[in-house]
Amino acid sequence: MTAPVCSGMQAAGVAAGLKKNGQPDLGLIYSRTPAAAAGVFTRNVVKAAPVLLDQQRITSGRCRAIVANSGNANCCNGDQGLRDAVAASAAVAAALDIPEEEVLVASTGVIGQPLPVERIVGAVPELVADLTDDGFGRLAAAVMTTDTEPKCIHRRGTLGGQPFNLVAVAKGAGMIRPDMATMLCFACTDAAIPAPLLDTMLRRAVDQSFNRITIDGDTSTNDSVILLANGAGGAVLQDEDGEAAFQTLLDEIFLQLAKWLVRDGEGANKLVEVKVKGALSDQDARRIADTVAESPLVKTALFGEDANWGRILGAAGRAGVAFDPGRVDLYFDDVRMVAGGVGCGEEAEAAATAVLKQPELAITLDLKDGSGRAAVLTCDFSVEYVKINADYRS
Amino acid sequence: MTAPVCSGMQAAGVAAGLKKNGQPDLGLIYSRTPAAAAGVFTRNVVKAAPVLLDQQRITSGRCRAIVANSGNANCCNGDQGLRDAVAASAAVAAALDIPEEEVLVASTGVIGQPLPVERIVGAVPELVADLTDDGFGRLAAAVMTTDTEPKCIHRRGTLGGQPFNLVAVAKGAGMIRPDMATMLCFACTDAAIPAPLLDTMLRRAVDQSFNRITIDGDTSTNDSVILLANGAGGAVLQDEDGEAAFQTLLDEIFLQLAKWLVRDGEGANKLVEVKVKGALSDQDARRIADTVAESPLVKTALFGEDANWGRILGAAGRAGVAFDPGRVDLYFDDVRMVAGGVGCGEEAEAAATAVLKQPELAITLDLKDGSGRAAVLTCDFSVEYVKINADYRS
Repeated sequence: MTAPVCSGMQAAGVAAGLKKNGQPDLGLIYSRTPAAAAGVFTRNVVKAAPVLLDQQRITSGRCRAIVANSGNANCCNGDQGLRDAVAASAAVAAALDIPEEEVLVASTGVIGQPLPVERIVGAVPELVADLTDDGFGRLAAAVMTTDTEPKCIHRRGTLGGQPFNLVAVAKGAGMIRPDMATMLCFACTDAAIPAPLLDTMLRRAVDQSFNRITIDGDTSTNDSVILLANGAGGAVLQDEDGEAAFQTLLDEIFLQLAKWLVRDGEGANKLVEVKVKGALSDQDARRIADTVAESPLVKTALFGEDANWGRILGAAGRAGVAFDPGRVDLYFDDVRMVAGGVGCGEEAEAAATAVLKQPELAITLDLKDGSGRAAVLTCDFSVEYVKINADYRS
Repeated sequence: MTAPVCSGMQAAGVAAGLKKNGQPDLGLIYSRTPAAAAGVFTRNVVKAAPVLLDQQRITSGRCRAIVANSGNANCCNGDQGLRDAVAASAAVAAALDIPEEEVLVASTGVIGQPLPVERIVGAVPELVADLTDDGFGRLAAAVMTTDTEPKCIHRRGTLGGQPFNLVAVAKGAGMIRPDMATMLCFACTDAAIPAPLLDTMLRRAVDQSFNRITIDGDTSTNDSVILLANGAGGAVLQDEDGEAAFQTLLDEIFLQLAKWLVRDGEGANKLVEVKVKGALSDQDARRIADTVAESPLVKTALFGEDANWGRILGAAGRAGVAFDPGRVDLYFDDVRMVAGGVGCGEEAEAAATAVLKQPELAITLDLKDGSGRAAVLTCDFSVEYVKINADYRS
């Protein structure tokens, strides 16, 4: 497999001393020419300094570089946090000789500890020197927190016969849930796409991917998904066919990364799709799917490979959505375990237990009330999850 | 300590073979004379058969007996579940020679497995023979699931100079959260109190106790709190002073039981009160308190005795309530850890870490926006919780 590349884009990742273990913790994306930019950020009321800064800067629709650190969230640090985020961007802008306002910033790590920004500023020369066309893997490693592997996907497509590249890097692992997660994702393309359209396509792709995953129901203060398009590859998005082609590729990459984040969720062993259909509305279906996907009792049963469908119905019943429990069917993959609200017996139980031993499976609830449907991705809740999160700061 | 007693009331607990381990799993309360009765039940859309039956029967305001089993929830068993609940009540009514409609039923255990009602019916003669004035401890043992100890409280009060008894038995342990929990609570008094007033006082007491606790955010299909008053002790509630006296005692007992349920929550090591003040409304405060109290990341940090206040602010921020993070103060007991949204430094951290080592503590968030306040009780989220729930059915 060749390394991911995207014309006119370079990436880097170095160790700046933010992580106690000396692992890479500072990454950079650099576009040689101004790129159109779009971003989606956390809806948490408590937003980290880099999110506040980026939300302001991205309104220009232009970006030349993104500097991202792990090991510290730079959140709940007051005005000093904002000054530090600006200082990190300024150091990168100076080293690359680009406008400071065209540098975006992202952070992930512990909340509420002052950012040792002098380490970031001190490491910028090394970071810039580390930039290469094939540096996306090093960037992916530098933004990891409790992820067990760096996550980078590269695809090629064509627009009007002209090839283009799309590279996306993501980190996740903890605090993952719908409406964004503690996740960072940076995607770059060398196709030419105007910023407003880039924004529209980014939001569509996020809705179908990162906004459909949950690990523990907690949302982060730092979630950011940023998409850059610098046009350096020669392909130009100029019609509806092109839009469809690019959207398809973007959706595919984001969904693949979203599943990867869940599979690599803290302590996760299983990727489980929770599907709800037959609800009165899509919104009702989503509320039930979310409640099931976030239920600790459901998730611990998944960890135990226990086809404890009563917990699934119990969770559905507390979602705040009215339905008739006496009509519900429930499936593990294709195995019907509940029909009309009643268990299907030992044979179905045995078949469902076999499904639960798989690394990936789907749980489907059919309420038989209407045509509303929704699906979210979740994982099991393991002993390892608790261990990771009990001593995350130490 | 003398055994709990309540004039004219008897209780029992035997092993009917519903639990695989041969432990007591069938309990009974019997009032020699008709008692006024009030009940509060789960708000889960999916309700167990005994809940559906009791909700109907309790409208009479009269009750002579409650039969309760552990080891099986008798939920999601369709019409057969209802027939089984009725059959259990009929067997008890026949053995005690009382009207079937004055027997209430409660079940707790695994959802979606047929109730082996023949074992209950077969054990009724032994159960009735086991009735004694001091049998409440045996009843408490018979309704345990993953509880580590039976929970029974007895208090004496006076009404107009006449003494009365109030005895309450509860079980909890898992699936505990506000708006009821997988919990059963049966309370008996030998004071004379009319059913409508009993209902009012029961709801008040539940709101201040069982509706303020959370263990894992999951609500049960079987939650039931039932209060009986048979007047056999001679005390009569006949004025506002009496109402205040009884309410105070009932509130006290229920709050004590609620705390006991949380302390004995599945895998729990700490009892933590989450207080929110300075919100724009009590409702806003409650939403934030609930979200913090149910956050897996907050609860695993409590398990790790880690003063990770960033997770607390992060959880508060996703509660769906607008507030200014830059004004928030956060306390662990009396230790201010965050002032105006920013951490108070290493000295505060050290003091907060000492607070976290306590078995009981309070977390207080002050939003400084208004006078809305709320408090809920929660526990930590431990490795043991996951282990208990991963193989609950096996």
